Amino acid sequence: MTESDRVVVAVCQLDGVAARDDREVIRRAVTAAADRGARLMVLPELAACGGVVTSREQSRAVAEPLDGATVALAAELSAEHGCVVVLGLAEAGTGGKVHNTAVVLDRGELRATYRKVHLWGAEKNAFDPGDQPPAVVDTSAGRVGVMVCYDLEFPEWVRMAAEAGAEVLAVPANWPVRPGGDPQRPFEVVKARAAAVTYRVNVAVADRCGVEDSVDWYGGSLVCDVNGELLAGPACAGPQDGRGAQPAILTAQVDLGAARDKRLGRFNDAFADRRPDLYTR
Amino acid sequence: MTESDRVVVAVCQLDGVAARDDREVIRRAVTAAADRGARLMVLPELAACGGVVTSREQSRAVAEPLDGATVALAAELSAEHGCVVVLGLAEAGTGGKVHNTAVVLDRGELRATYRKVHLWGAEKNAFDPGDQPPAVVDTSAGRVGVMVCYDLEFPEWVRMAAEAGAEVLAVPANWPVRPGGDPQRPFEVVKARAAAVTYRVNVAVADRCGVEDSVDWYGGSLVCDVNGELLAGPACAGPQDGRGAQPAILTAQVDLGAARDKRLGRFNDAFADRRPDLYTR
Repeated sequence: MTESDRVVVAVCQLDGVAARDDREVIRRAVTAAADRGARLMVLPELAACGGVVTSREQSRAVAEPLDGATVALAAELSAEHGCVVVLGLAEAGTGGKVHNTAVVLDRGELRATYRKVHLWGAEKNAFDPGDQPPAVVDTSAGRVGVMVCYDLEFPEWVRMAAEAGAEVLAVPANWPVRPGGDPQRPFEVVKARAAAVTYRVNVAVADRCGVEDSVDWYGGSLVCDVNGELLAGPACAGPQDGRGAQPAILTAQVDLGAARDKRLGRFNDAFADRRPDLYTR
Repeated sequence: MTESDRVVVAVCQLDGVAARDDREVIRRAVTAAADRGARLMVLPELAACGGVVTSREQSRAVAEPLDGATVALAAELSAEHGCVVVLGLAEAGTGGKVHNTAVVLDRGELRATYRKVHLWGAEKNAFDPGDQPPAVVDTSAGRVGVMVCYDLEFPEWVRMAAEAGAEVLAVPANWPVRPGGDPQRPFEVVKARAAAVTYRVNVAVADRCGVEDSVDWYGGSLVCDVNGELLAGPACAGPQDGRGAQPAILTAQVDLGAARDKRLGRFNDAFADRRPDLYTR
């Protein structure tokens, strides 16, 4: 890879309760990531308002406009460190709507807004789904695609972001441990890796951790390359670790250029080999 | 799961050279699988003719009609053991065409034929791609979907088979070790697991092993459930094993009923949550 294609990406795994109670948790995480050379920082879904939002009353209570405190903080931090910050918030939309939104701030400027389309669980009662494709935007840290959590589990969505030229997918997420699920092995990790290798795009997922209103978060934050290989994470609880997943700043150097090359050897190409003429929707 | 939904599936990992040189290798593998209670046996792509077919001359030389020796052997074995056999062959089609085909034999009867659509590597020079969707057919071992090797890496193809009601995908495959690739960790395994969990379908991949005409095969045969969890395999070389992958018969009991239930908890459904109105092709 060329020098300019090397970018250090950080996924900031936050304790959900701590980040809800004190916005300084976000400031400290971004500052720590910047100290480690990161130029793209990804933070969790609904980063500052708590991740368990299951009713309209709740979502309205925590919703903020795009010129509110959370986006202002992200703008300030991205300006201070000359970097890109991607995080999630409950967005007060028009006409009383509330969206589960991710924003991209580049050196102080709001560059993209994406509203989660595929809603998970009881958040269907709390949020209005978006109706726009994944955001893909040129930034000082490469061409960044953005989607939120469950969106990543729909291959079409990943493909559309990759087709729009995303070099790295920045994915704020809240992955709950499923009933009976193994806290060390979320299937979301398998899907994230497959998303990366299927469409040859780097993927950076920032998950949350801790127990919040009886929901236990996986803390599966990870960075993987265009081959689906894990460069960092997942940051889940270890096999001998009864404590559950912990807050973490994971960094990895990704190769943006690799995501611009969809070839697979001499004969194949991840996109040219598709047969959309034969696919149903 | 109910008793009738429990089916033992076998993936028969064959040494490519041995199976090419002696059809008895196939007979012994299916017999061994039957002895272990399997009712659905999956064998590799191009099971009996060698897996390195890279020119039109080569494919024509090994092509057989659907009433040829390989299908006859599979029919005989499926009748003898009262089971379903899925395997791959080079099929002599009409007008001089040659297809990389998989067949489904149920208790002696040819129930389905599928011609590989997504061709890998130099086999593009050797075979004519099919133009039909994955085969999905009711058998004595459940509703079986069939695709071949690289097909499985296209989420649309897996979705179409799952939408057609496949309870288990039977996937004859030949996974070559990539240059520089780790022989223990083919990314195809990640994609296979993601295919299973994304569309909630059991997946059984039969790979080949050994070195054949300078191609080293992964031997990544596996069975995974609708959660993407490995029930058997992958049968790749072990980390301390310099010998490479070995022939193996892997069996696992799969739950066909689980594949008929696409719900994910109270609020979600792997298919109903899709937003085809927003997806490009």
